[in-house]
Amino acid sequence: MQIGVYPGTFDPITNGHLDIIKRASRLFDRLYIVIPNNVNKKTFFTLEERIDLIKDATKGIDNLVITHTDLLTVDFAKKIGAKVLVRGLRMVSDFEYEFQMEALNKTLNPEVETIFIMASHEYSFLSSSSVKEIASFGGEFEKFVPLNVYHAIKEKLSK
Amino acid sequence: MQIGVYPGTFDPITNGHLDIIKRASRLFDRLYIVIPNNVNKKTFFTLEERIDLIKDATKGIDNLVITHTDLLTVDFAKKIGAKVLVRGLRMVSDFEYEFQMEALNKTLNPEVETIFIMASHEYSFLSSSSVKEIASFGGEFEKFVPLNVYHAIKEKLSK
Amino acid sequence: MQIGVYPGTFDPITNGHLDIIKRASRLFDRLYIVIPNNVNKKTFFTLEERIDLIKDATKGIDNLVITHTDLLTVDFAKKIGAKVLVRGLRMVSDFEYEFQMEALNKTLNPEVETIFIMASHEYSFLSSSSVKEIASFGGEFEKFVPLNVYHAIKEKLSK
Amino acid sequence: MQIGVYPGTFDPITNGHLDIIKRASRLFDRLYIVIPNNVNKKTFFTLEERIDLIKDATKGIDNLVITHTDLLTVDFAKKIGAKVLVRGLRMVSDFEYEFQMEALNKTLNPEVETIFIMASHEYSFLSSSSVKEIASFGGEFEKFVPLNVYHAIKEKLSK
Amino acid sequence: MQIGVYPGTFDPITNGHLDIIKRASRLFDRLYIVIPNNVNKKTFFTLEERIDLIKDATKGIDNLVITHTDLLTVDFAKKIGAKVLVRGLRMVSDFEYEFQMEALNKTLNPEVETIFIMASHEYSFLSSSSVKEIASFGGEFEKFVPLNVYHAIKEKLSK
Amino acid sequence: MQIGVYPGTFDPITNGHLDIIKRASRLFDRLYIVIPNNVNKKTFFTLEERIDLIKDATKGIDNLVITHTDLLTVDFAKKIGAKVLVRGLRMVSDFEYEFQMEALNKTLNPEVETIFIMASHEYSFLSSSSVKEIASFGGEFEKFVPLNVYHAIKEKLSK
Repeated sequence: MQIGVYPGTFDPITNGHLDIIKRASRLFDRLYIVIPNNVNKKTFFTLEERIDLIKDATKGIDNLVITHTDLLTVDFAKKIGAKVLVRGLRMVSDFEYEFQMEALNKTLNPEVETIFIMASHEYSFLSSSSVKEIASFGGEFEKFVPLNVYHAIKEKLSK
Repeated sequence: MQIGVYPGTFDPITNGHLDIIKRASRLFDRLYIVIPNNVNKKTFFTLEERIDLIKDATKGIDNLVITHTDLLTVDFAKKIGAKVLVRGLRMVSDFEYEFQMEALNKTLNPEVETIFIMASHEYSFLSSSSVKEIASFGGEFEKFVPLNVYHAIKEKLSK
Repeated sequence: MQIGVYPGTFDPITNGHLDIIKRASRLFDRLYIVIPNNVNKKTFFTLEERIDLIKDATKGIDNLVITHTDLLTVDFAKKIGAKVLVRGLRMVSDFEYEFQMEALNKTLNPEVETIFIMASHEYSFLSSSSVKEIASFGGEFEKFVPLNVYHAIKEKLSK
Repeated sequence: MQIGVYPGTFDPITNGHLDIIKRASRLFDRLYIVIPNNVNKKTFFTLEERIDLIKDATKGIDNLVITHTDLLTVDFAKKIGAKVLVRGLRMVSDFEYEFQMEALNKTLNPEVETIFIMASHEYSFLSSSSVKEIASFGGEFEKFVPLNVYHAIKEKLSK
Repeated sequence: MQIGVYPGTFDPITNGHLDIIKRASRLFDRLYIVIPNNVNKKTFFTLEERIDLIKDATKGIDNLVITHTDLLTVDFAKKIGAKVLVRGLRMVSDFEYEFQMEALNKTLNPEVETIFIMASHEYSFLSSSSVKEIASFGGEFEKFVPLNVYHAIKEKLSK
Repeated sequence: MQIGVYPGTFDPITNGHLDIIKRASRLFDRLYIVIPNNVNKKTFFTLEERIDLIKDATKGIDNLVITHTDLLTVDFAKKIGAKVLVRGLRMVSDFEYEFQMEALNKTLNPEVETIFIMASHEYSFLSSSSVKEIASFGGEFEKFVPLNVYHAIKEKLSK
């Protein structure tokens, strides 16, 4: 059985992430979506909230496991027996960062392969941080995130 | 009447910004220079100081309005009846960021067009943050900013 | 009266060019679309064919002049009294090439300003040469070009 | 059964290609290596020679099919029932070209997914054309290509 | 006597830095490794620790001087009579940042030339911050840094 | 004695090349300017003409040797006892190409180091091919090349 791992911070999940998840889920028998538990990184949503938002937004895709880890992604993959990491690419700056991470990961564990999927062009401009910035200025961001995430951001900001 | 909007943080205005302003002011009947009022962003100069520094540095250009906004730039443009945003491009990293912002803005308001002007090559290496870094190390930065900004930085640092 | 110049080879015009033309035409009272008559460059369509294809594809946009020139674009602009060149940007490689051309043009004629418009994301992957390559392999390219161009390519290839 | 397609010109196959083939072959039950039969492109080795060189260089990898096609890669994939194209990425310029091709392919056939694998860092500088250039200047290129390719280039150049 | 200056934060020195130092030391009679004393920048190791780690890691290279400065690098170079700054390049993003710094430095002091050395491909993915991130997640980072740095990170993290 | 090698096609030498030569000549006791004798590459000026144009344009710089070679640059360097190649960098696309060449050269001869110098910003947009294109369209190119080159191009084009 082919297992894939799609790591990310997902603070929160956007329609761009969702597009990658849908497409990647077809390439594997099982796809893990995993959030590295980086205690030093300040996030807008808590780890639990981010996992719940992903679970709600991905209902209907059957072969997903949504979880978190204290390990490096590559060590997490080894632990669950996955041979493939999945990463989305939007831009040249993504490319360079991912190139570095891939080379590091391969040095750390040559058994795990990283594959990249290009963001669909209608999402190539989208990131979690731009969504949060637009929302904080009172702009309309409904088209950029799943509906449950839209409401969660609205609620968080109104507090 | 064609109205343009040139948004930025201008912390502080540099000779590079000034060059874009001069060139862009010739393309429009009126050009708004607008600072988004981002309360979460820590700046070297206050909002009021930054506006005053721009006003002093752009004396002699008649068709400018210098102001600030709590709205997204694209919503500010709509409110004042402007159809065009102006952005300066220096480098590939600018390009990618601007590409993302332009796509977001177009989704938010398809009526507003963004046009880009390349920085003159003698300013392509210049940014507000590099000026501040040089100044903080006691380096000479007089060539990089308008004279009033030069004195304002000197005064701020001596406090 | 504000006059713009949009230069290109247009071999042939694609939906990406058409999008730039529509958006740029709103920024000017009159927009010239001009093909530099480069005799050394081998093209798929002749100069006359390329001009006719643009004319057909842009019917309904009233303020266009479609023509060709033996001059450098910047000298053509000067001759017709235009102050602004328009260029589309799709990718980082475009950006670098355009940055070089803009700097050269500014050295040649400091009076003429170049403004850049980002390609809409649904056209950011599109180029005349990729359309011709797909067509030559018998692939479907109807979505990428205006209908008259589609038929012209089909006809040219069947000869 | 998961089938992959790795298209390329392979003029000739290098150690960089070979590395991608080895790694990609582990991701699929069967991997097609396919050369688009572009009659307009002048190559150093003929189509037959290139296929033979790949066959020799990949002996020992059991799940490969090495072939050529007159179709667009994406149409070839559809014909043989493959859902995944594989591409190698070395550099930013690769990235941009591949981004364009992927977007075109997805428009042509949304059912076929393209995945990307980063070149191992020891091959990130390697290309068929640089190997041929070094060889033509009498430089040493034995480390860059499989042994059979090394001899084939030597022989071709000595004619 | 030709003197070179290699500035950096070195928080901590990696095998990538060490490679640049070895190669650069052969180009000069004396090579200064200098850490700008930026009090606003929070570092993992103190200034003294970083200097000691470099001294230990570079034992055996005779023509090095390892020190720190409160000046801009370019002013430090002038003070010690050096005509050449050395910088390592790994990636496109490095390139752009370095291009800006070089242009600023040349404006500040036209007498000082900056030369660039490309990172060896086996280190092109390596940075001090990625080493620290891997270490903080409990990953293996022994291959990426000199042995003394490896132990220093281990000890610092265990506190 | 430190010897440097600055290779290039120089078809023809521009003010950008000249700037690199002046700056590089200060870093070495002797600087070789060498043109690889690539018989397959069609050039505007012959090998002899290009060498003569460089000789004329660099009069007054005493430590130059201007020559050509049938060898790979790295083998030429070895033959004359040089340890350092010099290359100019203007743009990201230069960077990637040079990164590949440097890695190849290092594999071919680890003893030879390549150092890079950034083009001065006033020349960062300049290339031999853009000069020739402007000249062929009758544009003014006097500012971009040494005076002898200006006359040589004029004469060549008038034939």
